[in-house]
Amino acid sequence: MSVSPHSEHESAPAPTGPVNLERRQLMLGSAGLLATAGLVGFSPLARAQGAPLPDYVGWKNADALIMHSASTLETKRDAIGRGILTPSDQLFVRNNLPAPDSSIMNDTEGWEVQIEGVNNPRALSLAELKRIGVETVVSVLQCSGNGRAFFPHGASGTPWTVGAAGCVAWTGVPLREVVRELGGVVDGMNYLTGTGGETIPAGLDPKSVMVERSVPLAALEQAMLVWEMNDAPLPLAHGGPVRLVIPGYYGVNNVKYVRRLAFTAGQTDANIQASGYRVREVGVPGSPDQPSMWEMPVKSWVTSPLTSATAGRSLIYGVAFGGVHGLARVEVSVDGGNRWAEARFLGPDLGRFAWRPFVLATELAPGEYRLVSRATDDRGQVQPEERTDNERGYGHNGWKDHGVTVTVA
Amino acid sequence: MSVSPHSEHESAPAPTGPVNLERRQLMLGSAGLLATAGLVGFSPLARAQGAPLPDYVGWKNADALIMHSASTLETKRDAIGRGILTPSDQLFVRNNLPAPDSSIMNDTEGWEVQIEGVNNPRALSLAELKRIGVETVVSVLQCSGNGRAFFPHGASGTPWTVGAAGCVAWTGVPLREVVRELGGVVDGMNYLTGTGGETIPAGLDPKSVMVERSVPLAALEQAMLVWEMNDAPLPLAHGGPVRLVIPGYYGVNNVKYVRRLAFTAGQTDANIQASGYRVREVGVPGSPDQPSMWEMPVKSWVTSPLTSATAGRSLIYGVAFGGVHGLARVEVSVDGGNRWAEARFLGPDLGRFAWRPFVLATELAPGEYRLVSRATDDRGQVQPEERTDNERGYGHNGWKDHGVTVTVA
Repeated sequence: MSVSPHSEHESAPAPTGPVNLERRQLMLGSAGLLATAGLVGFSPLARAQGAPLPDYVGWKNADALIMHSASTLETKRDAIGRGILTPSDQLFVRNNLPAPDSSIMNDTEGWEVQIEGVNNPRALSLAELKRIGVETVVSVLQCSGNGRAFFPHGASGTPWTVGAAGCVAWTGVPLREVVRELGGVVDGMNYLTGTGGETIPAGLDPKSVMVERSVPLAALEQAMLVWEMNDAPLPLAHGGPVRLVIPGYYGVNNVKYVRRLAFTAGQTDANIQASGYRVREVGVPGSPDQPSMWEMPVKSWVTSPLTSATAGRSLIYGVAFGGVHGLARVEVSVDGGNRWAEARFLGPDLGRFAWRPFVLATELAPGEYRLVSRATDDRGQVQPEERTDNERGYGHNGWKDHGVTVTVA
Repeated sequence: MSVSPHSEHESAPAPTGPVNLERRQLMLGSAGLLATAGLVGFSPLARAQGAPLPDYVGWKNADALIMHSASTLETKRDAIGRGILTPSDQLFVRNNLPAPDSSIMNDTEGWEVQIEGVNNPRALSLAELKRIGVETVVSVLQCSGNGRAFFPHGASGTPWTVGAAGCVAWTGVPLREVVRELGGVVDGMNYLTGTGGETIPAGLDPKSVMVERSVPLAALEQAMLVWEMNDAPLPLAHGGPVRLVIPGYYGVNNVKYVRRLAFTAGQTDANIQASGYRVREVGVPGSPDQPSMWEMPVKSWVTSPLTSATAGRSLIYGVAFGGVHGLARVEVSVDGGNRWAEARFLGPDLGRFAWRPFVLATELAPGEYRLVSRATDDRGQVQPEERTDNERGYGHNGWKDHGVTVTVA
């Protein structure tokens, strides 16, 4: 396991139980390096449940969030609710580097994004982007490691359960319209590469920490440059002034404070792309030949009840989404997956990238129940029963681990 | 003009310019009555722009609101935005009586609604309602007097322009499912009558001030008993613990803190129904034979730009809704209605009762423009050009008055 504080841009897990001396020394060393680099607060040692929220997310609803670290806030499972959209103050936060200084929000209209790999490359300010076009798309934002806590091998990184996900209305300009204005993509380009506007701490190799991600050119179909979230200006904590949003793709590809967008022949060699966010077997290091965390598959989980319920008629709630595809249906089981009943979607359909709350009404006698849900996308792909074990605990959409045990009395 | 402080449950307008002595005395007399009745703060004399928000709406975003009085808060036109939903903290507020004491929110699950005019009448607690069924419906909430400020005759009541409206996701149980549980509606009933849980001030005839509204039985198709708004528990300011919501109907019919729902042969004789919210010619008193403010018609308005814009490509934004019907299209004119261009809807369609943000991209040379919008519902009903003058300034959906003059430089 790498001991870099930013290995794959995930926090290392907090030590639980006995920690051997060698590991402790490595971690202290890592904390020292972090302090030198101005990254205190990003150390796993700084993780503190119940501590006040950091300034850049001070406007969030602390009661709805689990603070894993200053850069990793998870929505509590019982706060996910039955909503068609996640309120911004309850949405999870996951930063790969500290957010830029809040002064970048002083002149949002002047924020520039350099567009390269098009026939007429240039920098466009937000004011200019706003005049090119506009669309509102609702999509699920989900961290690659959502569900990591369910991996038994102790995958390193934030131990998210279900709350590193939310459903957001994004308003911005479709990237394809920007590209059209700039003469189209240069021939031979295969990837869309976005670079974040974070400050690279002195003393570190930029490639080792910078947030620069490449996605296949096909993502141009739905990619957007976004300046509003849930009908309010995009806050710094979520990537304002301008964020690259690729509906249907895992969170890491949605580059915050985006300052450069390049159409490129190959993928970036930044660590976060080359070795980070790669799916491989446990114990294997990351490398560019392994699958990258791009498109999200179908997934669902129960949000209520979570621990107890009253006997009689009960309503079981949850959320489901198809990832890059639309959602076809969701089923619920109260006996751990032996028998299934189709649930009903709640509220309007906000499009193929959105999640849909669901509900199943059922009669429950006193006893203990294992509630699980299983969604199917519009291509017929069904959530698998089991997780696929992998080194970093990515992409968990197995329905079994996401179940809850509820006592009905 | 009536001088009752609650005449038709609308605030009287604040005096502007010279006020004759007789009128001033009447108003002071009215203020005195209000003080006696514990209704201070509901007097027009208490209206104060820029004053702090009252406690029951202290969680609202004051920057987005115009405070006409303690009971009447309007969303600023430039805060309406391009959103598919109105954030709760920006939604307008209009109370016909002071909100009940906040202690009613201490045991929301225990709040009871008495259901009458069904074959098995009984009181149902919120906890019981939640087990009957659930749905999420998005609908426009709009005050009957939205647009009143545009009436030239000085219609009494709050001078709303466009911001006594918003689009909200309501979660609750469809009333028809509750009725089914209780054996169906008794034969011969023609109306659904809801009664609010406000405290009737001592010394006043309850019928003169109580919030009790009747709507045609046909509204049972879409009526709901609601406990969540925009995926959060319904706040007191918007009628929590439980509100009657009738999608497509004007705000006044959506009875807050509902404590009784009765299927009745006739309409209630409470003033708010019998003489209030009745459409009649200027100078005519209200009476039960006049049209009641029930179903909303098609309407739209521009939200941006409102005063100035930069020459060149411009995006003109607004919102449109079909009221009780779905929306077919919306057109925009930049020359006060001589030539029209069809605008594009922005974001997903949230159902027939929801509003839809729209946008039109156009090239504007320097000069002065009159921007207007005109929506058409799915029955082919088009917004009229002119308002229909009426005593209380109700139901204004004429497109001409809702235009804005913009200087392009």
